[in-house]
Amino acid sequence: MSLETSDNHNDLSGSVGLVKPQKVVIEQPLKLACGVTLPSHTLAYETYGSLNKDNTNAILICHALSGNHHAAGFYQDDTKPGWWDQYIGPGKPIDSNRFYIVCVNNIGSCFGSTGPTSENPQTGQPFGADFPPLRARDWVESQKLLMEHLNIDCWAAVVGGSLGGMQAMRWSLEHPEKLQHAVVIASAMKLTAQNIAFNEIARKAIKSDADFCDGNYLQHNKIPHRGLALARMIGHVTYLSDELMGQKFGRDLKAGDLLQGKTEPVEFQIESYLNYQGDKFSDFFDANSYILITKMLDYFDLAREYDHDPVAAFKHATCKFLVISFSSDWRFSPARSREITDALIAAGKNVSYIAIDSDHGHDAFLLPNQRYQQALGDYLSKLAEKIEDAQ
Amino acid sequence: MSLETSDNHNDLSGSVGLVKPQKVVIEQPLKLACGVTLPSHTLAYETYGSLNKDNTNAILICHALSGNHHAAGFYQDDTKPGWWDQYIGPGKPIDSNRFYIVCVNNIGSCFGSTGPTSENPQTGQPFGADFPPLRARDWVESQKLLMEHLNIDCWAAVVGGSLGGMQAMRWSLEHPEKLQHAVVIASAMKLTAQNIAFNEIARKAIKSDADFCDGNYLQHNKIPHRGLALARMIGHVTYLSDELMGQKFGRDLKAGDLLQGKTEPVEFQIESYLNYQGDKFSDFFDANSYILITKMLDYFDLAREYDHDPVAAFKHATCKFLVISFSSDWRFSPARSREITDALIAAGKNVSYIAIDSDHGHDAFLLPNQRYQQALGDYLSKLAEKIEDAQ
Repeated sequence: MSLETSDNHNDLSGSVGLVKPQKVVIEQPLKLACGVTLPSHTLAYETYGSLNKDNTNAILICHALSGNHHAAGFYQDDTKPGWWDQYIGPGKPIDSNRFYIVCVNNIGSCFGSTGPTSENPQTGQPFGADFPPLRARDWVESQKLLMEHLNIDCWAAVVGGSLGGMQAMRWSLEHPEKLQHAVVIASAMKLTAQNIAFNEIARKAIKSDADFCDGNYLQHNKIPHRGLALARMIGHVTYLSDELMGQKFGRDLKAGDLLQGKTEPVEFQIESYLNYQGDKFSDFFDANSYILITKMLDYFDLAREYDHDPVAAFKHATCKFLVISFSSDWRFSPARSREITDALIAAGKNVSYIAIDSDHGHDAFLLPNQRYQQALGDYLSKLAEKIEDAQ
Repeated sequence: MSLETSDNHNDLSGSVGLVKPQKVVIEQPLKLACGVTLPSHTLAYETYGSLNKDNTNAILICHALSGNHHAAGFYQDDTKPGWWDQYIGPGKPIDSNRFYIVCVNNIGSCFGSTGPTSENPQTGQPFGADFPPLRARDWVESQKLLMEHLNIDCWAAVVGGSLGGMQAMRWSLEHPEKLQHAVVIASAMKLTAQNIAFNEIARKAIKSDADFCDGNYLQHNKIPHRGLALARMIGHVTYLSDELMGQKFGRDLKAGDLLQGKTEPVEFQIESYLNYQGDKFSDFFDANSYILITKMLDYFDLAREYDHDPVAAFKHATCKFLVISFSSDWRFSPARSREITDALIAAGKNVSYIAIDSDHGHDAFLLPNQRYQQALGDYLSKLAEKIEDAQ
């Protein structure tokens, strides 16, 4: 248990409080989908709440492209809480008073788990671009090893947004007996050509940076900041809706003015905002991880091994499903969630689908929204009651 | 007249045939909106069809971001005709048998008219990044000087898609007595924050290329190919619809396969296509022109000088308007065309609006579409009849 609380922190009220990340070295070999075996791997993770006596109240939170294990609460030096603190905490939709909540930084990422910045034992140098290609199923298998380490036999729920939802769906097919519920938020069974296009442009931006050094930038004491910033800017625009950007920034100016007779540079607020977001991101995320995980997104295709038939795929699932979409999400549009729901219904599965009105685009899954909070909270509250009744 | 025809060219049937670009040095000083004056400037242009005896049948075609003066017909070595050959030619919607059609490469571009690659007379070096910032109204004023050179007193119509439509609207406000009709296709009265965001990312991609050299790459015998290719890739994705990319490329692979147990790189067709488009573009377009013209797009705001009231702005227009939009265009969505139409109606102007169903996104304005061809053809045919009746 990583949870600590402190009465001195006013801003901790309503949150899981002070948290500390944990690390575990998984000594079992992990055979990846590409055929390469990781002899061992490190996982950084956090937990919130307490495991009940039957170990039946554990929820796995699956992060997306740029996420990590710090989903809720505060580190000692944090000015902002973990990335899903709006939804995880005491009395929140994913209630840390009732559930034991686990969030792990997945392999290939760059926040403490084995990934491209880790030392390749065969060379003594960082893996860099040589880190083996990953699939969502590899994250699932690694999460399963952590699950065993934590003595959890079956997740009460596996929950995730975007790439996180893909992991939840993959769990339901690969280890149907290991989860009771899959909560699939703002996700898709596979990316569209447009999704892949934006990911490829982001990768190309990184690789075009002279400081990328074919992925071996760490050995050259360089960081492809400009390319990574560009990649993030591209991603960021696709996570926001046109409407929201209009409301938030419109055509407001940050510098210069548009009167005639002026040659000074003009900068719009949206330009300044995006540049700031890009620069900030390039300070903490790893470029090889970005390439690796966007490729994982592109490669994900839920039904590939089921003759491209999602109904045949979902026939293997035994858990119940909650599917949630957001109206202005054009990265993973509501149509994608309806496809998931339709396939689940056709496969005879138990599924609830909630379409949330929001103008926050794909990012909506991370942000406060009364109807979304209510729906997710009600769904998990019923699950908690059932678990508590069985104790 | 630049038109030549040759019976030896089978593929010239239905086109304006072989064409030759022309050049004129406009010796009148051109005071730009930014306050800088170009003492003289060169314009490359083409014409198709014949001017009637009263000089009343001239149509001005306004190109968009990456366009040029070669709108129709073939050069001797062309394998493909000009960029709007589907719409300009004998018997085509913009009928070269009835109209005298003028298309000019605008200043700041890179196909022969004065722009960043031209010599700055003050330094003897290319203007590069020092080319003065431009507005759509500067293109209009330059086009007006060409109009005088060609002895045209009033355009029968000013026609353009995208940034071309912005020029048509600006003509209607700045020189209302100089055009009879404005045809505004897939355009907008101003860009949204999302539009500006994509343009800024494209500019950032160019400026982040180490070969950009702060815009002085020509002096260093370099070309920022990678940055310009990226800029084009970003633009290209926003010109296509999600649906069309799905139909055209889906998740088809160009290289590798997605079976498990494979570490070889996987490339989707859409990645290959976009990379090809980006590389091809970077061979012929100028990076400073791209920056300059995307900024011109961002700065365009039809009603800025009219207290931000488009109805007040359009009150100055006296021409008739045809407004056309395409259903899957998310760069300049049908909502933008409806805003133009609503403002024109509120200003008491004569306007026809045609919403075309198409899955080709913003690019639809360049592509064959029966209803679009019919509508544009019918509109201009009535205009031609009126002009011919008055002869």
